[in-house]
Amino acid sequence: MVLDKIKKENDIKKLTPAELAQLPGEIREFLIQSLSSTGGHLASNLGVVELTMALHLAFDLPKDKIIWDVGHQSYTHKILTGRKDGFDHLRQFGGMSGFPKTSESDCDCFDTGHSSTSISAGLGFAWARELKGEDFHVVSVIGDGALTGGMAYEAMNNAASLKKNFIIVLNDNNMSISENVGGMSKHLSKLRTSANYTGLKEGVQTTLENIPVIGKHLVSGIRKTKSSIKQMLIPGMFFEEMGIMYLGPVDGHDVSAMVRVLKEASKVQGPVLVHVITKKGNGYEPAERHPARFHGTAPFDIDTGVPKGKTRATYTDIFSTVMRKMGGRDERVVAISAAMSDGTGLKRFRNKYPERFFDVGIAEGHAVTFAAGLAAGGMKPVFAVYSSFLQRGYDQLIHDVCLQNLPVVFAIDRAGLVGSDGETHQGVFDISFLSGMPNMTLMAPKNIWELSDMVKFAIAYDGPIALRYPRGEAYARLKEHRAEIVYGKCEELFAGEEVLLFALGSMVDTAVQVREQLQAHGVMPTVVNARFAKPFDEEYLLQTMGRYSLIVTMEEGIALGGMGEHVGCFLYEHGYQNKMVSVAIPDEFVQHGSVGQLKHMLKMDAEGITEKILKEIR
Amino acid sequence: MVLDKIKKENDIKKLTPAELAQLPGEIREFLIQSLSSTGGHLASNLGVVELTMALHLAFDLPKDKIIWDVGHQSYTHKILTGRKDGFDHLRQFGGMSGFPKTSESDCDCFDTGHSSTSISAGLGFAWARELKGEDFHVVSVIGDGALTGGMAYEAMNNAASLKKNFIIVLNDNNMSISENVGGMSKHLSKLRTSANYTGLKEGVQTTLENIPVIGKHLVSGIRKTKSSIKQMLIPGMFFEEMGIMYLGPVDGHDVSAMVRVLKEASKVQGPVLVHVITKKGNGYEPAERHPARFHGTAPFDIDTGVPKGKTRATYTDIFSTVMRKMGGRDERVVAISAAMSDGTGLKRFRNKYPERFFDVGIAEGHAVTFAAGLAAGGMKPVFAVYSSFLQRGYDQLIHDVCLQNLPVVFAIDRAGLVGSDGETHQGVFDISFLSGMPNMTLMAPKNIWELSDMVKFAIAYDGPIALRYPRGEAYARLKEHRAEIVYGKCEELFAGEEVLLFALGSMVDTAVQVREQLQAHGVMPTVVNARFAKPFDEEYLLQTMGRYSLIVTMEEGIALGGMGEHVGCFLYEHGYQNKMVSVAIPDEFVQHGSVGQLKHMLKMDAEGITEKILKEIR
Repeated sequence: MVLDKIKKENDIKKLTPAELAQLPGEIREFLIQSLSSTGGHLASNLGVVELTMALHLAFDLPKDKIIWDVGHQSYTHKILTGRKDGFDHLRQFGGMSGFPKTSESDCDCFDTGHSSTSISAGLGFAWARELKGEDFHVVSVIGDGALTGGMAYEAMNNAASLKKNFIIVLNDNNMSISENVGGMSKHLSKLRTSANYTGLKEGVQTTLENIPVIGKHLVSGIRKTKSSIKQMLIPGMFFEEMGIMYLGPVDGHDVSAMVRVLKEASKVQGPVLVHVITKKGNGYEPAERHPARFHGTAPFDIDTGVPKGKTRATYTDIFSTVMRKMGGRDERVVAISAAMSDGTGLKRFRNKYPERFFDVGIAEGHAVTFAAGLAAGGMKPVFAVYSSFLQRGYDQLIHDVCLQNLPVVFAIDRAGLVGSDGETHQGVFDISFLSGMPNMTLMAPKNIWELSDMVKFAIAYDGPIALRYPRGEAYARLKEHRAEIVYGKCEELFAGEEVLLFALGSMVDTAVQVREQLQAHGVMPTVVNARFAKPFDEEYLLQTMGRYSLIVTMEEGIALGGMGEHVGCFLYEHGYQNKMVSVAIPDEFVQHGSVGQLKHMLKMDAEGITEKILKEIR
Repeated sequence: MVLDKIKKENDIKKLTPAELAQLPGEIREFLIQSLSSTGGHLASNLGVVELTMALHLAFDLPKDKIIWDVGHQSYTHKILTGRKDGFDHLRQFGGMSGFPKTSESDCDCFDTGHSSTSISAGLGFAWARELKGEDFHVVSVIGDGALTGGMAYEAMNNAASLKKNFIIVLNDNNMSISENVGGMSKHLSKLRTSANYTGLKEGVQTTLENIPVIGKHLVSGIRKTKSSIKQMLIPGMFFEEMGIMYLGPVDGHDVSAMVRVLKEASKVQGPVLVHVITKKGNGYEPAERHPARFHGTAPFDIDTGVPKGKTRATYTDIFSTVMRKMGGRDERVVAISAAMSDGTGLKRFRNKYPERFFDVGIAEGHAVTFAAGLAAGGMKPVFAVYSSFLQRGYDQLIHDVCLQNLPVVFAIDRAGLVGSDGETHQGVFDISFLSGMPNMTLMAPKNIWELSDMVKFAIAYDGPIALRYPRGEAYARLKEHRAEIVYGKCEELFAGEEVLLFALGSMVDTAVQVREQLQAHGVMPTVVNARFAKPFDEEYLLQTMGRYSLIVTMEEGIALGGMGEHVGCFLYEHGYQNKMVSVAIPDEFVQHGSVGQLKHMLKMDAEGITEKILKEIR
C-alpha cells in the first residue's frame, strides 16, 4: 500500500510517479471502506482526492495555509497530514472531527463548517503575512455552491486591493449539496465548456509562467493578439472584472495538470482564481449517481450504496409530507430553500409545485428578505432552513421580517444538538436569538403529530413565526395528547405535584422519561409541553407556580437568553419564591458525538436531569 | 411654486414641461432649507431629485412598487407622494420618519434602513405578482455602495430565474457614505466612462424598444454586428453574466432621458438593471464638496454649510484618538471598517497607518471573518462598526471568531438608542446576541476615560472582545473614578444602602442622576459601574446582594437576553430573595425621536427609573 508511506504532511512528495498514480485509487478505496462503517461526507471527498494531492504537492504545509471552505471535503487532507487512523472514530464522540480543526493539526490553519467563509479568512491570512513581512502561500479552496453565498462575493470584491499572491481554488462540481442554482452557476457552466486550460499549446503556458515578471499589462496585450489565450481568459470575465485573475478550467482529476497550474498561480502578484472541474462522488458509482444522498451519509453497504440500519420517520419527513399537503390547500403557500431542498424535505413540495418553490442557493440572508418581499406581496412563504444556517439571516429576520410584522414561516430543522457534525452545526442558538426579536413567535413540537399541527398553525398565523425541530428520528409517542394549538398556550400532559417539568419540543420526550425515573423515587412531577417558547404561557405558570417547590425548564438550546431565563425572570418577578432549574446548553461550544452522548455529557439526558432534581428537592 | 401643485402621488404627471424643468430646483431649495433646520440625510437626497421624478413619471404609484435600498434617499419620493409638510418634523419624535415606512403611505411598499436588501425584497414582490397573476412593475433602487453587500449579489444571482419584468435601478454616485471600495467599484468606474446610453443613435433605441418582442436571442446577434450596441452592452458584462440585462449608463440628472430608459426597461421580460449616474449633493456646493459630512447632517448654516450648535466630544472622537495612538504603540493593530471610516472615527487611523487600515465596503459578514483571518495570522484586528450593522455578522461572530477564540476587538459604536434614525438603526440587540456567544467578552465604558482604557484593555486581551458605546456626546464626568480595568470586575462608584444600581455603560450617567433624585427621597443607593456585561462580576454581586432590598440592573439594550436577565437569574439561583428591577428596552421596536424623548417614553430616564424604584421600595 502506497497509503502506508504517508505518515505526515509532505510525505506525499517522496512518492515516485508510479506511486502517485496509484494513490488516488487507494485513498478512494480507504474512504469508501472507512465511511461505509462510520458514515460521513463521502461524495464531496471522493471528488477532491486528486485536487488535495495536487495542493499538497504544490505547496508546503504547514507553512503554507490551505483553508477549506465548509470543510467537509477535507478528508484526503486529513489522510495526507497523518490522520488516517482517525477515520476509525470519525465524527464520533472524542474521535476525529469531520471538519478542519486547528486543535487537531497545525496543517489545519482555520476551522470551518459553514459555507463561503474561506476567501474572507484567506484574505486575512494573506494581509497578515504582508504586514508581518512573512513569506508563504495562502490558498482558499471553495466550491461553486459556496460561491452563491454573498460573503464569498464580499470577499472577492475586497480581494482586488491585495497586490500580493493569494490563491482561490474554485472546486467546481456543478453542485451545492443539491443542484446548484443562479446566474453564477450559469456563468460557470459556460466556463466549463470553454477551452480546457491544460489543452493549451506549450508556448502559451510558457507565456503564462512569465506573468509575474512581465506583469498584467502584457497579459492584456496577449489577450488581444492570441485568440487561444483570449478564449481562455475572457470566460473568467466575472472574476477578472472583480480584479481577480482567472486561470482555468483545469481537469480536477489530473494531478500533474493541477500542480502545474497551481505553481503558476503561486507566482501571480495579486489574487488569482484557479478553476478546477471535479466530479462529486468520483470513483464510486452509487455516489456519482446520487451525490446528494452521499453528501453526508450514514454507514452504508458498499456494493449497493444502500444505508445500513432501519430508518424511522424523521421530523424532516413529516414536515415534507405536510408541506406538500399545504401546497394543495392554499395557493399562497410558497417554499424557500437555501440549497437544501433534500435536507429540509422540501423536495416533495418542489416536485409537486415547482412554480411555488424557490431554491435561492447558499444565501440565507437573501432568503429571509426574499421571503419578506413575498409576504409583503401577499404570499405565505415558508423558509425551511437548518438552525445553524439561519444565523446568517439574523439581521434580515429583525430588519425585514419582524420590523414589518410580516407573515413568514421559519421551519427550523436541525434545531438543538445535531451530533456528529459538531460545533459549527449545533443548532443551539435559535431560541435565544429569535426570542429577542419583537413580533416573533417561536414554537417547538413534542412529536410528529404536533409538528404537523404546528406547520398548519404557522401558515395560518399572520406574523413572523418559527417552529424548531431536531435532526433525526421523530418522537412518535403521546399521540393521544393532541389538543388544538392555541396561541401562546402550553399543554399539560401529566398532572403531578411538587415538581413542574416545563419542557420545550424535543425535551418533552426527555421530560416523560424524567417523570418515570422520578416516580421510582416517589416523586410525581407535572409534565407540561411548553409548545411556545415565545410567548411562553405566562398565565398557566402564574396560576400553577404556587403548587411547586421546584420548576424545571427544559430546552435544547443555549441557557443564555433561552426560554429558561425568560421563564425564570418572569416567575421571580411575579413573586415565585421557590427553586428553579434551567436545563439548557451551557455557555460553551459543544463538540461532535452522538446526540445521546452529548446530552449525557451535558447532563441533559433523563438521568442527569433526574439526578439534578433529586438533589434540589432532597 | 410648482411644488405647491404636488399634493399627492401622480400629481407630477400633470405638470407642463416648463414646470417639470423648474421642479428639481424647487425641491433642492426646499430640501436645503428644510434640512438646514431639522437636520437629516442631505447629500444622498440632493443626488436623486431627478431620478425620483423620473421614477414617478415612468411608473404608476401605488400600483407599481418602488423599493428604496437603505431608504435615506427617499425624501423627494416623500415630497412627490404628498408628504412635504412632514418635513417640518422630520425624524422628530412623533414626526415623519427619515426612511420609507409602509405605515406612512401606501406608496411606501417596503420598510428599509439597512443596506442591500432591496433586490431581495423586490424579487419577492415580483414573484408574488407572477404567482397571483397581477400586473404591476417592481423597481428596486440601489446605490453602488450597497452593491458591495453580499446580499445584493445573492439576490442578483437569484434574479435570473425570473423571466418576467423586474427593474433594478443602480443609483451610481461612486460613493458609499465614505468613498466606495473594491472590485465592483472599479467595474462600475469603467462603465461610467463608457459611451453614454442616451448618446446612442435613434435607430439603436428603436431596436432596444423591440427587445421584448424579438427576444434576447436577437440582442446577442445585434451585439455581434452593431459595434455601438456592443460597446454599450459589453461593459455591463458583470450583470449580463449574472443573467441580468444591463442598460446604461444614463445621466441621472436628465429626467427625460431617464424616463425614456425606464420605459424601455419596463418592457423587458426578465431582470434588467438601469445604470444611472448621479452626483451626491448635487446642487448644493458644500454637500458636493463634502458628501460624507452631508450624508446625515445636523442643522446647518445654509451659506457656509457649517453645522449649527456646539459640538462636544463624542465617544467616536475619543475612540478615533485612542486608535490612532494604539496604532503607533503596537504594529499588530489593524483597523477594519465596513464603509464607515468617517462614522466610526477610523479616519485618523487610516490617515496615519493606511497600510493597516481596511475598508471592506458594506460587507459586515466578510469584515468579521476577515478580522478572524487576520487574528489567526497573528494581527490584532479592531473592527469598528455600528451596533445595528454588526447584526449582519452574527453567524460569523459565532462561527469564525468565537469558535476559535480569536483575538478580535469589536468596537461597537451607536450602541443603544440612536435617536432620529429610528427602528432600523437602534443599536439595542448587541448585548443580548453577544452574551449568548461562548468565549465572547463584552464591556461598556461609563465615560470618555474609560472608553480609552477599555480600548487598550481590549487590544491587550487574547480572545474575542467587544466594547459598546453610544452615539453622540460622551459622558465627561466621574473622571476621578478611573480604577484599572480588571477582567470581569465591576467598579463601585458610590457606596450606599438598601438599593443597588448596577448600571452598564451609558446608564451609569443615568444611575448617578437616579442616585441624586433618590437622595431627595431619603434613599441612598449604591451605584456600580458594571463595566463587563459578559462576564458580569458574579463575585461582587454575591458578596453584596445581602445588603439590598432592591437590585436594579440598567442597560441600554433589549431586556430579553440582556444583562438584567442574566444577573437576575444568577442572583435568584444563588439565593437572593429580594426584589429586582431590570431597566432595559422592552420587547418592541423603538421609533425615532431624540434619545432623551425615547428614554423618557420607555421610562429609562432618571425620572422614570426613580419612580419605579420608589414604587418598589415603598
